[in-house]
Amino acid sequence: MTLSFGRNYLAIPGPSVSPERVLNAMHTSAPNIYEGGLVDMVADMIPDLKAVARTSGDVAIYIANGHGAWEGAAMNVLAPGDTALVLATGRFAALWGTICNRIGIETEVIDFGKTSGVDPARVEEALRADTERRIKAVLTVQTDTATGVLNDIAALRAAIDAAGHPALLMVDCIASLGCDTYEMDAWGADVTVAASQKGLMTPPGLGFVFLNDKAKAAQNERVSYYWDWRPRIDPEGFYQYFGGTAPTHHLLGLRAALDLIAEEGGIEAVWHRHDVLAHAAWAAFEAWGQGGPMKINIADPAERSRAVTALSLGADNGTRLRRWVEANGGLTLGIGLGMSAPGDPKGDGFFRLGHMGHINPHMMLGALGVIEAGLKALDIPHGAGALSAAAEVISKG
Amino acid sequence: MTLSFGRNYLAIPGPSVSPERVLNAMHTSAPNIYEGGLVDMVADMIPDLKAVARTSGDVAIYIANGHGAWEGAAMNVLAPGDTALVLATGRFAALWGTICNRIGIETEVIDFGKTSGVDPARVEEALRADTERRIKAVLTVQTDTATGVLNDIAALRAAIDAAGHPALLMVDCIASLGCDTYEMDAWGADVTVAASQKGLMTPPGLGFVFLNDKAKAAQNERVSYYWDWRPRIDPEGFYQYFGGTAPTHHLLGLRAALDLIAEEGGIEAVWHRHDVLAHAAWAAFEAWGQGGPMKINIADPAERSRAVTALSLGADNGTRLRRWVEANGGLTLGIGLGMSAPGDPKGDGFFRLGHMGHINPHMMLGALGVIEAGLKALDIPHGAGALSAAAEVISKG
Amino acid sequence: MTLSFGRNYLAIPGPSVSPERVLNAMHTSAPNIYEGGLVDMVADMIPDLKAVARTSGDVAIYIANGHGAWEGAAMNVLAPGDTALVLATGRFAALWGTICNRIGIETEVIDFGKTSGVDPARVEEALRADTERRIKAVLTVQTDTATGVLNDIAALRAAIDAAGHPALLMVDCIASLGCDTYEMDAWGADVTVAASQKGLMTPPGLGFVFLNDKAKAAQNERVSYYWDWRPRIDPEGFYQYFGGTAPTHHLLGLRAALDLIAEEGGIEAVWHRHDVLAHAAWAAFEAWGQGGPMKINIADPAERSRAVTALSLGADNGTRLRRWVEANGGLTLGIGLGMSAPGDPKGDGFFRLGHMGHINPHMMLGALGVIEAGLKALDIPHGAGALSAAAEVISKG
Amino acid sequence: MTLSFGRNYLAIPGPSVSPERVLNAMHTSAPNIYEGGLVDMVADMIPDLKAVARTSGDVAIYIANGHGAWEGAAMNVLAPGDTALVLATGRFAALWGTICNRIGIETEVIDFGKTSGVDPARVEEALRADTERRIKAVLTVQTDTATGVLNDIAALRAAIDAAGHPALLMVDCIASLGCDTYEMDAWGADVTVAASQKGLMTPPGLGFVFLNDKAKAAQNERVSYYWDWRPRIDPEGFYQYFGGTAPTHHLLGLRAALDLIAEEGGIEAVWHRHDVLAHAAWAAFEAWGQGGPMKINIADPAERSRAVTALSLGADNGTRLRRWVEANGGLTLGIGLGMSAPGDPKGDGFFRLGHMGHINPHMMLGALGVIEAGLKALDIPHGAGALSAAAEVISKG
Repeated sequence: MTLSFGRNYLAIPGPSVSPERVLNAMHTSAPNIYEGGLVDMVADMIPDLKAVARTSGDVAIYIANGHGAWEGAAMNVLAPGDTALVLATGRFAALWGTICNRIGIETEVIDFGKTSGVDPARVEEALRADTERRIKAVLTVQTDTATGVLNDIAALRAAIDAAGHPALLMVDCIASLGCDTYEMDAWGADVTVAASQKGLMTPPGLGFVFLNDKAKAAQNERVSYYWDWRPRIDPEGFYQYFGGTAPTHHLLGLRAALDLIAEEGGIEAVWHRHDVLAHAAWAAFEAWGQGGPMKINIADPAERSRAVTALSLGADNGTRLRRWVEANGGLTLGIGLGMSAPGDPKGDGFFRLGHMGHINPHMMLGALGVIEAGLKALDIPHGAGALSAAAEVISKG
Repeated sequence: MTLSFGRNYLAIPGPSVSPERVLNAMHTSAPNIYEGGLVDMVADMIPDLKAVARTSGDVAIYIANGHGAWEGAAMNVLAPGDTALVLATGRFAALWGTICNRIGIETEVIDFGKTSGVDPARVEEALRADTERRIKAVLTVQTDTATGVLNDIAALRAAIDAAGHPALLMVDCIASLGCDTYEMDAWGADVTVAASQKGLMTPPGLGFVFLNDKAKAAQNERVSYYWDWRPRIDPEGFYQYFGGTAPTHHLLGLRAALDLIAEEGGIEAVWHRHDVLAHAAWAAFEAWGQGGPMKINIADPAERSRAVTALSLGADNGTRLRRWVEANGGLTLGIGLGMSAPGDPKGDGFFRLGHMGHINPHMMLGALGVIEAGLKALDIPHGAGALSAAAEVISKG
Repeated sequence: MTLSFGRNYLAIPGPSVSPERVLNAMHTSAPNIYEGGLVDMVADMIPDLKAVARTSGDVAIYIANGHGAWEGAAMNVLAPGDTALVLATGRFAALWGTICNRIGIETEVIDFGKTSGVDPARVEEALRADTERRIKAVLTVQTDTATGVLNDIAALRAAIDAAGHPALLMVDCIASLGCDTYEMDAWGADVTVAASQKGLMTPPGLGFVFLNDKAKAAQNERVSYYWDWRPRIDPEGFYQYFGGTAPTHHLLGLRAALDLIAEEGGIEAVWHRHDVLAHAAWAAFEAWGQGGPMKINIADPAERSRAVTALSLGADNGTRLRRWVEANGGLTLGIGLGMSAPGDPKGDGFFRLGHMGHINPHMMLGALGVIEAGLKALDIPHGAGALSAAAEVISKG
Repeated sequence: MTLSFGRNYLAIPGPSVSPERVLNAMHTSAPNIYEGGLVDMVADMIPDLKAVARTSGDVAIYIANGHGAWEGAAMNVLAPGDTALVLATGRFAALWGTICNRIGIETEVIDFGKTSGVDPARVEEALRADTERRIKAVLTVQTDTATGVLNDIAALRAAIDAAGHPALLMVDCIASLGCDTYEMDAWGADVTVAASQKGLMTPPGLGFVFLNDKAKAAQNERVSYYWDWRPRIDPEGFYQYFGGTAPTHHLLGLRAALDLIAEEGGIEAVWHRHDVLAHAAWAAFEAWGQGGPMKINIADPAERSRAVTALSLGADNGTRLRRWVEANGGLTLGIGLGMSAPGDPKGDGFFRLGHMGHINPHMMLGALGVIEAGLKALDIPHGAGALSAAAEVISKG
């Protein structure tokens, strides 16, 4: 007999839980797209959106998922024949590189493996070696959703500068924006790609590309209509913001989400919350790992994202645990994505916990509690004191 | 800085969390009340509603809260000058008695205190003493929301029968229906009073009175229009179900709630879920109590409700804990209701955890986790292993 | 083949259409009823609610429909054996009288028929005849939902005063509040009864009783707990506002509805809108009537409500029209209530158009357009120019 | 004083009104995108979606607006250097051509003006002249949202065939799908482009490209990742349907919209409803035009869309009327798009009425009624009997 009837908590690494206020804002029969409230709202919302990315640059909003925003960002500043240096730390930067390849961009990939972040020294070295300046851009994720790694963007900028290389620094913050601390301007990112459905707490359907003057200067003349960010960042009319019909309901939802961020105390308060909650989760995971197979994928806490944690449990325990917590606990965990181990080619030993967006101690401690119940129910060995350790972290705020 | 931005969990002993499906069912601009879908729906819904109370009797639906339903139930079978035997086990049966007094019904109260349930032997004794058969009804709660006590209704019936007394057994299941096991027909209750906002997962606004043939036979001729249950249980038209305009949106919500119960596997599955979750909570409370002041109000587990647990923490710790978990954890606990202790006249040492309705392990373990965080943050002494003990209970399903 | 797929317009005389904002405000998993936002909100809302009734008196909010509010109002100031003078102008004042009878109040009924309003002279005469002052209250509706009549409340007060009679003037504004102009204090009503689901645009489930000092002075000592308005108008705690658990979601909806009224420009703007829209409807009805059987039930425009219009169409044309417009036009009309004619004992020749609450020219002219389509489809004779006449009224604002 | 407080009707030519059921389906905190209900739902939904376009071919779903779907469709079968024959009948085919130009496709434009549809003979002639078969595709809209023209797609196919030309027939049905009769397979369209926010009654955010085997055979090897329709029509996993994160809430909304279409009786019933409602509108417009400046942009009814009607009113009357009906009537009309006249360079003499999607007689007749009120209020001359003429059309069903 299931115990799961109740409010399910979807703790996958995106889409995240949409707050009731966001959903209520989207519950409207349809607003006008030619004039009136929605039209006025969007211009006012742009500064709030940029504040989340900590930039005084520009932002283009696309009706697209994150993969679309990747394609859009690449098309504006990279042309067929250009080279991008791709910093692989899991799955997503590499996939962005593949998307670049599909439009004729060459890529040079440095693979940092799946258990640690970018090593800036190797990036600097690669850029120094590029004496012909073929590399137009360095592509990285801040947080890789598959591995849970958090890359040091400021260090990457320092490495690029140390190499005296003109390449753009293009950062995928799809999983991290509004979760992990991110200072686009202060850290020297030129392009930031994000999406609505993670830290921004709005259903999937919007992609964002933030860009600074350096990125604008690198503009390709020829860009497809839909991906061209020029009219979107400097629209002659409302229609140009979105290259056609506006995503009316998503805009209303996003406005509500940005209001929530403001009410919480701004993005720094949001980052702090994610930081504490992630540390709570890690405290539990490490305690369980003391007495069993559980292991956080990224060993060094300094390299872990505050938005998602990837874990291994051995054998097929990841899949067994996911099935149990969903069927019995009202908790949905993320699958291991692109992970494998000897004897586990499909990654059934892995799982992920998303802790992004609209999440608080009740939701996090509930998720950890259900995981402990699952470990017990499935007789997966685990250390003691995990839940109390997590509560301890939260008690300190 | 608060960590509470996220989905708040309201764990007071009612109103309980309304499921999204219930709320979506209520999100309709307005249905017709003269004919069509809503009218057809109500007749079909009555059997499903009676199944929750396990009765083949009748049910009257009132637009009212539980206090209104009390008044309604009393008016139909008790007349000015009649006597009701009120079994006080906290706050609510006594209050029902007061409401009876207000309409001229005499009450004889047996007070069983606030820390244990009804003693059937004393009831039998009182009834035997009533040689003149002045007592027309025995009034009890199944679950007292203030104390968390669970009374043994079958034993009460046995006591009444043993005394050979004709009094009606009238049971308040407002807090317990759809949470604590309840068998109206099998246990011999004559009248059952309930409401929408607890186990039935629908916003406050509907009261229910279930009744059997014995209650119908006890009908007063003169009853006020609004409280008269006769037209409501045997309506000539849709209008009579509700003594006027139907509570359209609540009916749509209730239909969705009853559908959820059916999908879970019926009321027995619902009872089982509440039973396991309550035991999980008690395991944590008892573990904390091993090393500190926490104490479950009802010592004997057999007398504890599966819908709500009342606790004491000493001094003003109840209020402090409530404030902390709401401000920092996304959890709202119930106040201590009608409780006091030496040095604590206002009951600031008490609090309650509601665990009724749309609740699953994630929600329960999250609530317990936040409580542990609060105990730590506030330096309230507490035993170890509480959260793990709760997870252990849940792991066994 | 139906053409009705689209947004249906429910134009019955209540419940009226709930605005999206009201429904969205109600779409919340559950608020706390012990402290916090909802508790603060209610105290702030009371003045806004009283402003709708134009009174500086008090208001008691009941979880009940209008029939419940009738019973509640009567119980507070009328006692068994008291006499109420009931002014019947259709169905509802008489029904209120019946409800009084059920609690032992005597009634003396003056029936003004179903096609015109109260004649104050007859009321004055009846009061003068009551030399023993047995009559404690005069009961009237402002608008009778069945007949569409609008009674002149100020004239009633003048009649009572002219008779030098101390009777309370108790007015049912259930159908009219927030639609027809009503000045409780200026017109000298002592008690006003209303409900949520008409001009207040909130789903059925709340009843309101407004009262002035004279009504308070007439207070019965003994009133049932649920109906006693004393704690509700002067609550010691939040719990007393509602005699138990608060109607959480309805309160949130009502708050949104009162906000809409404020945004429209206050209650006078709302009255003006209803006035224009009603006149538009009457212009169409009268034009149709020029060439066919259609007849507005109340001949004198000064005696017609701005909230609902009752009509006759002859034979079974009312029912035929209702069926046609619902199946083919996306419009639901009200049934003829309590009407009959020679050869039409069940009132199939009658129907009603509600025009209350959240209604604008688009909704009204759409309703009239669909009625004209129905008259044509069913070959019911009708005069020309009706729709244009209605548009003409609206064009003048 | 405004009369507009009530349910506003947005009668612009898209986005159209989203039904409550669609919006309620979208009101969910977030579904899983890896497995479970949503994943199963999409595969089941594809056939229902294809049935709306009347094709046994394939469909690719894009998170994009219609302009994005245009770009996507073009990229798959047209390569830089290819030529497309663009049939301009207003604004939108020409804009699609411009989007093609932006990705290096040459276009040859035949402009049929703004007041009539495509002349198949001229298309045949142009294709016959293309002896080198440079033209790879003929691009047309079925309905041009700006002019309200409806092009004859079957005749276009016949013209292409008559010319013995292998060009693909690519049809934009963004405004027409689910409104105007459209038989993709039977009429010989190779590619059909559509979007969610018009006949499909779902908020903007989804674009659809339907394609047949001939289009598949014309596939470019090199297509950007996001626009490549191959994985979307033949996905290896759920992720590939949408080139990344699924548009979770839109999919739930679309499912509800397709259910509504099924309940109405299928797409033929939907077409019939649009046909009758459009004829009702035209009857009114023509009657008004008998006595004043109002003129339907497309003179020949056979060339008019059932989804939108464009009109001229002279001078700045279009804008004045739009402002009046919105401020006073609760109706929002569409602006004249890309229209101008001597002395009216900005098109203030024009307006449009959208009549697409979730619309029924009440909504249409209400819109027409408010327009008549506006004409009167603004003293714009107009013929008599318009509203009655519209009602007459609807009365015949």
